[in-house]
Amino acid sequence: MIVLGIDPGTATTGYGVLEDIGGKARLIDYGVVRTSSGTNQAIRLLEIHNRIEQVIQCYSPSVLAVEELFFSRNAKTAITVGQARGVVLMTAAERGLVIYEYTPLEVKQAVVGFGNADKRQVQAMVKAILQMKEIPKPDDAADALAVAICHIHAARLAKVRGTQL
Amino acid sequence: MIVLGIDPGTATTGYGVLEDIGGKARLIDYGVVRTSSGTNQAIRLLEIHNRIEQVIQCYSPSVLAVEELFFSRNAKTAITVGQARGVVLMTAAERGLVIYEYTPLEVKQAVVGFGNADKRQVQAMVKAILQMKEIPKPDDAADALAVAICHIHAARLAKVRGTQL
Repeated sequence: MIVLGIDPGTATTGYGVLEDIGGKARLIDYGVVRTSSGTNQAIRLLEIHNRIEQVIQCYSPSVLAVEELFFSRNAKTAITVGQARGVVLMTAAERGLVIYEYTPLEVKQAVVGFGNADKRQVQAMVKAILQMKEIPKPDDAADALAVAICHIHAARLAKVRGTQL
Repeated sequence: MIVLGIDPGTATTGYGVLEDIGGKARLIDYGVVRTSSGTNQAIRLLEIHNRIEQVIQCYSPSVLAVEELFFSRNAKTAITVGQARGVVLMTAAERGLVIYEYTPLEVKQAVVGFGNADKRQVQAMVKAILQMKEIPKPDDAADALAVAICHIHAARLAKVRGTQL
């Protein structure tokens, strides 16, 4: 099973593509969609749509894993992240992917083993789990890989327990 | 010129289609896209995308008019409205529409003549301007018609003044 992890944002949307081999994550690809601040937001959202569609066409993932969003910060940021997130969810639904959402706590627990891990610890564990030579850059790509790893772990646990995800 | 006004939301997205005849607004169509709360958000966003695409294919508008979003309320609402808004903007950009955004103040000033008009006054003026027999229902459709009217007025003013929108 191929799992696509995405960390959505208008300026930078990170993505990570992993293969789930019997509960073990194998790295296929990762990267970011960067959109130019000079262009208007609708065009930037269309760029995100087109690039994520390309990634889906290229690797045929069956699952999209994304973080649930919690915002204590300003509503303006929530709207712009929400816009990018909406486009990502819609694009995945259009291509028939099944969508799973995980809280930041679940992602940290799955990747590092405890919920109050910091960003560097998560990134170091992503590198170790995927047997990468370097910590994946930029942060948005690392976050996208982390949520994809989280899904593979959750799917393995569910299988062991005989429960539904 | 055909103008599409949209008031985005995950549960209900209102739309209004007007023709701009020398600065006068003529009603072509209006309605809402309702999505079921029982289905997941990605499918609901895809429904919004598909229906708005149908409206665009049916009437070939050249312009999308939407309200700018300002939120003093909770960030969760901002995210879900942002998601629907992102899908609407992306769909319009995909079909080549030019997008204009107006503040709630600008919409009220354009439709009623003063910025602190209430919802009922806006709806009554939408009915009068478009020579409708009834106040358009539901509210989301009326709001979508209001922002489309706002664009037609703004375009007329810009023409009179020889300025760019």
